[in-house]
Amino acid sequence: MTSSRIQNLFDIHIPIIQAGMVWCSGWRLASAVSEAGGLGLIGAGSMHPETLQEHIRKCKATTSKPFGVNVPLLYPEVDKIMKILVHEHIKIVFTSAGNPSLWTGYLKEQGITVVHVVSSAKFARKSEQAGVDAIVAEGFEAGGHNGREETTTLCLIPMVCDAVSIPVIAAGGIASGKAILAVEALGAEGVQIGTLFAVSLESSAHEAFKNKIIELNEGDTALTMKQLTPVRLIKNEFYQRILKAEQQGASAEELQKLLGRGRAKKGIFEGDLIEGELEIGQAAASIKEVKPASQIVYELWNEYHSAIRHLIK
Amino acid sequence: MTSSRIQNLFDIHIPIIQAGMVWCSGWRLASAVSEAGGLGLIGAGSMHPETLQEHIRKCKATTSKPFGVNVPLLYPEVDKIMKILVHEHIKIVFTSAGNPSLWTGYLKEQGITVVHVVSSAKFARKSEQAGVDAIVAEGFEAGGHNGREETTTLCLIPMVCDAVSIPVIAAGGIASGKAILAVEALGAEGVQIGTLFAVSLESSAHEAFKNKIIELNEGDTALTMKQLTPVRLIKNEFYQRILKAEQQGASAEELQKLLGRGRAKKGIFEGDLIEGELEIGQAAASIKEVKPASQIVYELWNEYHSAIRHLIK
Repeated sequence: MTSSRIQNLFDIHIPIIQAGMVWCSGWRLASAVSEAGGLGLIGAGSMHPETLQEHIRKCKATTSKPFGVNVPLLYPEVDKIMKILVHEHIKIVFTSAGNPSLWTGYLKEQGITVVHVVSSAKFARKSEQAGVDAIVAEGFEAGGHNGREETTTLCLIPMVCDAVSIPVIAAGGIASGKAILAVEALGAEGVQIGTLFAVSLESSAHEAFKNKIIELNEGDTALTMKQLTPVRLIKNEFYQRILKAEQQGASAEELQKLLGRGRAKKGIFEGDLIEGELEIGQAAASIKEVKPASQIVYELWNEYHSAIRHLIK
Repeated sequence: MTSSRIQNLFDIHIPIIQAGMVWCSGWRLASAVSEAGGLGLIGAGSMHPETLQEHIRKCKATTSKPFGVNVPLLYPEVDKIMKILVHEHIKIVFTSAGNPSLWTGYLKEQGITVVHVVSSAKFARKSEQAGVDAIVAEGFEAGGHNGREETTTLCLIPMVCDAVSIPVIAAGGIASGKAILAVEALGAEGVQIGTLFAVSLESSAHEAFKNKIIELNEGDTALTMKQLTPVRLIKNEFYQRILKAEQQGASAEELQKLLGRGRAKKGIFEGDLIEGELEIGQAAASIKEVKPASQIVYELWNEYHSAIRHLIK
């Protein structure tokens, strides 16, 4: 990945993108990752428009390097958000959770580089047709909201790379230099990493949430609420309640009522490990420490180069 | 993988192992894969003991190269099976679906190389303690019966490689040379491939089943029956019936009754695409052709070497 199209597209040195995650990815995290040579993303999904504006300004004030903003297209105030991005001269926008044809044209007209997040080759093709500059292809093992196809990163990346000619960024289950090399072998030209950065020092997640993650073992997360929008969560008390309701034949309406509102904030930002919706990826089982984001970037990049040397020795 | 411990352990040239699959892996398939330089496995799971003995003898008659037998340890006549393996001087046994401490000692005393299939680092450790010679670590994307942790191959392989010092064979989602290189980057020293060989010319699966597989797209399989034993199936009419029952709150007993007996044979061997249990992996979405097993082995191995050259160019 040392001379990939991803570095040129974003003008970055290291093709590691920090995912724009709700309640984790404010200006502190995005700025730290960009300063380290990767691409930091502010996650607009958990911000009011004016909060986002403040984060963008603080990010600009703390790094002169490129950073971007992730916008879930189903966000209720997406019009306001897009106006702020243009007004603040944001150069890179990652869109997710919605139809790429809605906003790509508008953003491209403003000279913005646009990347769309997909979980299938079918939507990768649609995104390319909509004019995006690159694709994030995210597998089943990723944390948070996820595709209905349940295709894993190992199966997804080669199919997406076959489907499009624009660069593909792999996401889901990547938390080591070996995993970066693995997805490169599959055809990816960059990686988007969430879970590992959610646990970083600069993540705005609650300390209790970070401490919970570094104690997780294999099998401690699950993709749930498939009747609503599938989401990968830690199997806490709230998850168990959803599971029980599903096994007793709960309808989508009943599940929606159980879910209520604001549970991701409650869990990730406020640290309520019992009632919160604790979104995190399978890779959590391999993370044992809270580290500064810059250290994470450097260690990943060193591990990646060691992995190459090990492979060709 | 060109000088791995796996080649030495099995005395084979190419570290590609054909999975021992119910209703697919008789002597024809195992013999063809072994003749091509990989390791063929006869799948005992769908055979009466006397049928297995016949398959072993035919396999011996058609290849002088090493081959093995896969034995699911929950098989009702496992005692008889093990006696046949010893009597027929089988040198390599893969055990699955059960406790590795039950038979490993006995098989090792007979001079047999023993490999156990796991879906977690925890059971990899237990298998190593039980004395097995190698581990197959199989991810969520694999076809047929599968682990409850739902850990994908990308997340599983590094954790298993960290947990044990014996060689690790990756399984689940591997159907290309790029994927072989990817799991090697993660630490695997060999691969076990099911889906791709289930569709081979020599597979004993019904032609209708093979033709169905090569038409599948992404999202066309799912891990189901999690209240019983999780199994990855094509989303056919039988699967939809199970899904509907689950969503209506069916108990494990009711699901067991719906499942009944012999559905894998009905689907895979008899070609009943509506009522059969059609076990196959996610990689099916990338397979478009029925080929001879030897061609599959050679193409995978060539693709793997091309992938290395592409990576280090």
